[in-house]
Amino acid sequence: YGKNTIKFLRLHKEGKKHFVKEVEVCAHLRLTSPQEYLEGNNSLVIPTDTIKNIVLVLAKKNGIPSLEQFAIDICNHFMTTFCQVAYVKTYVQEVPWQRLHEDGVPHIHSFICVPDGIRFCEAEQCRNGPLIVFAGIKDLKLMKTTQSGFEGFYKNEHTTLPERHDRILCGELFCKWSYGECKDFDFNCIWKKIRECILEAFAGPPDCGEYSPSYQKTVNSIQMHILSRVSQVQVIEVVLNNTFYNVVDMKNLGLTNDKEVLVPVEAPYGSCACTLGRK
Amino acid sequence: YGKNTIKFLRLHKEGKKHFVKEVEVCAHLRLTSPQEYLEGNNSLVIPTDTIKNIVLVLAKKNGIPSLEQFAIDICNHFMTTFCQVAYVKTYVQEVPWQRLHEDGVPHIHSFICVPDGIRFCEAEQCRNGPLIVFAGIKDLKLMKTTQSGFEGFYKNEHTTLPERHDRILCGELFCKWSYGECKDFDFNCIWKKIRECILEAFAGPPDCGEYSPSYQKTVNSIQMHILSRVSQVQVIEVVLNNTFYNVVDMKNLGLTNDKEVLVPVEAPYGSCACTLGRK
Amino acid sequence: YGKNTIKFLRLHKEGKKHFVKEVEVCAHLRLTSPQEYLEGNNSLVIPTDTIKNIVLVLAKKNGIPSLEQFAIDICNHFMTTFCQVAYVKTYVQEVPWQRLHEDGVPHIHSFICVPDGIRFCEAEQCRNGPLIVFAGIKDLKLMKTTQSGFEGFYKNEHTTLPERHDRILCGELFCKWSYGECKDFDFNCIWKKIRECILEAFAGPPDCGEYSPSYQKTVNSIQMHILSRVSQVQVIEVVLNNTFYNVVDMKNLGLTNDKEVLVPVEAPYGSCACTLGRK
Amino acid sequence: YGKNTIKFLRLHKEGKKHFVKEVEVCAHLRLTSPQEYLEGNNSLVIPTDTIKNIVLVLAKKNGIPSLEQFAIDICNHFMTTFCQVAYVKTYVQEVPWQRLHEDGVPHIHSFICVPDGIRFCEAEQCRNGPLIVFAGIKDLKLMKTTQSGFEGFYKNEHTTLPERHDRILCGELFCKWSYGECKDFDFNCIWKKIRECILEAFAGPPDCGEYSPSYQKTVNSIQMHILSRVSQVQVIEVVLNNTFYNVVDMKNLGLTNDKEVLVPVEAPYGSCACTLGRK
Repeated sequence: YGKNTIKFLRLHKEGKKHFVKEVEVCAHLRLTSPQEYLEGNNSLVIPTDTIKNIVLVLAKKNGIPSLEQFAIDICNHFMTTFCQVAYVKTYVQEVPWQRLHEDGVPHIHSFICVPDGIRFCEAEQCRNGPLIVFAGIKDLKLMKTTQSGFEGFYKNEHTTLPERHDRILCGELFCKWSYGECKDFDFNCIWKKIRECILEAFAGPPDCGEYSPSYQKTVNSIQMHILSRVSQVQVIEVVLNNTFYNVVDMKNLGLTNDKEVLVPVEAPYGSCACTLGRK
Repeated sequence: YGKNTIKFLRLHKEGKKHFVKEVEVCAHLRLTSPQEYLEGNNSLVIPTDTIKNIVLVLAKKNGIPSLEQFAIDICNHFMTTFCQVAYVKTYVQEVPWQRLHEDGVPHIHSFICVPDGIRFCEAEQCRNGPLIVFAGIKDLKLMKTTQSGFEGFYKNEHTTLPERHDRILCGELFCKWSYGECKDFDFNCIWKKIRECILEAFAGPPDCGEYSPSYQKTVNSIQMHILSRVSQVQVIEVVLNNTFYNVVDMKNLGLTNDKEVLVPVEAPYGSCACTLGRK
Repeated sequence: YGKNTIKFLRLHKEGKKHFVKEVEVCAHLRLTSPQEYLEGNNSLVIPTDTIKNIVLVLAKKNGIPSLEQFAIDICNHFMTTFCQVAYVKTYVQEVPWQRLHEDGVPHIHSFICVPDGIRFCEAEQCRNGPLIVFAGIKDLKLMKTTQSGFEGFYKNEHTTLPERHDRILCGELFCKWSYGECKDFDFNCIWKKIRECILEAFAGPPDCGEYSPSYQKTVNSIQMHILSRVSQVQVIEVVLNNTFYNVVDMKNLGLTNDKEVLVPVEAPYGSCACTLGRK
Repeated sequence: YGKNTIKFLRLHKEGKKHFVKEVEVCAHLRLTSPQEYLEGNNSLVIPTDTIKNIVLVLAKKNGIPSLEQFAIDICNHFMTTFCQVAYVKTYVQEVPWQRLHEDGVPHIHSFICVPDGIRFCEAEQCRNGPLIVFAGIKDLKLMKTTQSGFEGFYKNEHTTLPERHDRILCGELFCKWSYGECKDFDFNCIWKKIRECILEAFAGPPDCGEYSPSYQKTVNSIQMHILSRVSQVQVIEVVLNNTFYNVVDMKNLGLTNDKEVLVPVEAPYGSCACTLGRK
């Protein structure tokens, strides 16, 4: 198969107000015949340059009402236009431009980049198969400074980690969910709701939080919360890349450090992942 | 000289509410004698490990009320403790953790990383000289989708760029200012005000913007605006790393592209910089 | 499942001569029960810290005769020691330290980092299943300045790419192969031979090269060459991330550019991949 | 001032043999008048796009016999063509393509990227001033597994580092030297000789090495060795970014670790730098 990446900006105006979407699109194609590989016969090959043109033309004609709709448009175009395409997958990722505000007033044409979690989606289809849509968020960095521990784990002669009931929980979250077969969803609205669910499940109630006995349980809580609140979601994959922090031992320096100064532990660098679906 | 980088977290509580500062500190030292280099005599050398301990101890004892105050504390410590230090510079940069909010309610111990411009500062001092404080913001990505052009530039036989009166202005801003000799400023408050000035000068009024005839003029407008509004600032350096966008020519594809689809131009990649002070 | 990454150095001496291996090890574990996720019950969880200790202890006891043998040792340890482990995969990657030479004389304890292709391997095993070993090379950047073209491809109204029979072929190669079930192979020797095969198949004979009609065909040539020369290899995956170069059009500048000055095309950025096995 | 970066490939043939240089050029210009910044008057501004064209045209016309000669050509062009240029600096950096060899036979048109130290140079000139040429190497990663220690350093109540007489010395080297006023040097030959000097001074004799009492002394040894062996060099700046390795304490794990297993210490991350010139 082949894939390629195109980055571009789509602008549109409503009156004097400007709207901007900057996206990175990656299209994977697999052809029905491997003759290009085996025989060097290029007659079915769709050049990278043509794929780029198609993506840009679709953006021009249809705009990007949502990342998901745009990914669907691209899949549909390839499947209906090229009978030599056996499989197509499109990945669309957004540059997180947000409208600037001055004293609460939105600016008509100025934007700031705020990368607090990157939105992306995927659409994929095999010839004669359904078009499946995924969406997700990545590079979302979160931290809880208390209400987290890790106790009661398996121990043997290689165990040196002490049990902790009040540690820092910090990580970079990747979350990807499937909508199953493509329907007429309000993808923008659902995405925002799921982002909120993630934050709620990670942090717990604002006045007290909720105790996390492990990174794994937090991953599961996020999944359960989304499944219970967003009916359109079928399956959820969550990966949490953990950053561990150690309380600095200051005894040698004549001080007591009551979880006030901590250093990140670069290695081992861990991550935990789980995929959960509806029954 | 030698320098080194330490990353750590400083936590403190007010009642049940948690406050977190994660910083990266870089300390540069120059000693009065180069004997370590020339003779391999280490007797005056302050090991990297000791510098790390000092930074952590200061964070533990003083906390980090502002990046600037912490940088000043470190400078003072090295100058007063080690007579072999001829020059010290400390750079402090913040990991942009922001308190999480759920339905507008602030969470007592959960945070999200929002890197929409990174705050940093520097303090430097030569023995017997004044302690100078700088502060700044970096990695601030801004875009205007109109009210920008570039015309009337110098032309000769190597010129191929067309004049444009309605282009995208997009860039990554670095801005660093000096407070002159250290006084009792409210560094946190001033920093926020300067960030606002930058956004105002870049974007212009929210309902109509302000025309920018070049990246250079926008750099100057930002500087003038800060100098006129923030009396504590003595000198300002601004660097704007430009991202150019080209309107895609779709004539070959049978379409008219009225600045709707644009692609970033990776090379040449330009930047303009200017340093401006008070008379 | 969970995974984590550990980086370390393994040193050993033969007389006064030093040997060094710096590796990054990543271990993935899946447990027989998901109770850690569902119930927050940690009693079967092997902490990241314990995994790190095990990897370091194995390195200390067994050394790293080859990346592959070390990956196998780790797999075996987890499978035989922990009955709660359902699946283990270990990835080992090398920092490419090479012995320094002065006027052709090898230095007994000095090394230089030469990242012209990074060696890695994987070993994986399900409980009651065979231990499978993979090896590979990545980040190998190669270029042919002629003997490459791209013609006869599929064309329609979105095609703007001209046919070319003398272009630059440049890319970053990823190549991973499977040895099938683990046997007593000389992994170091085989790896070197496969690296040579890749270079030969990419470049063709030194005096004239060999024409490549597409990136795809080059990928296939590499695979075929390895399969024909290295009997231990069962299946090969190759991914070639293409860098395209355009001849700069200098007509406007009054010059003829006969493929002398070219600029890399940042987007679209393409890649082609193929997996090929023995019948 | 303004600067911009251009990346391109320069190809030339001698008979059927191909030669390739891929470079990144960065040109900084400062104009005699700041009217572009203060007044938004662009009439003297040389657009980034024009600078790119000039660099490419010079590469086409003159080729790149050495990075240094190319940097000089660019400086000369700007100074002689544009009377509004007050200062020009050009930085040229090489992509380290090396000719492929098969069984010792050089390939006529195939190359491999071998980034074991990146060559760069700078040329700068003020109007009416001399043209100064610098050259250098960066990203050169070196390691000595013995013959290095750190003892007798300054100690006080914040010192926790133990003295060591047999540690790992590992770092990334940056070295930049000045040739003074530009003369007719064989820049390629001198660069190779200096690279050899660096390796010799870092490693010491191949059969026994040479003891380094500190990173600082090693920096100085490199500088002294170059100054004594290469008469064209006037001033040398060396920066060594240190990677520290700690011997893993395995007592808890029931093992004695005799400097066999070490882990890199991510923080504090140190560096030492020194600039040395002839009297």
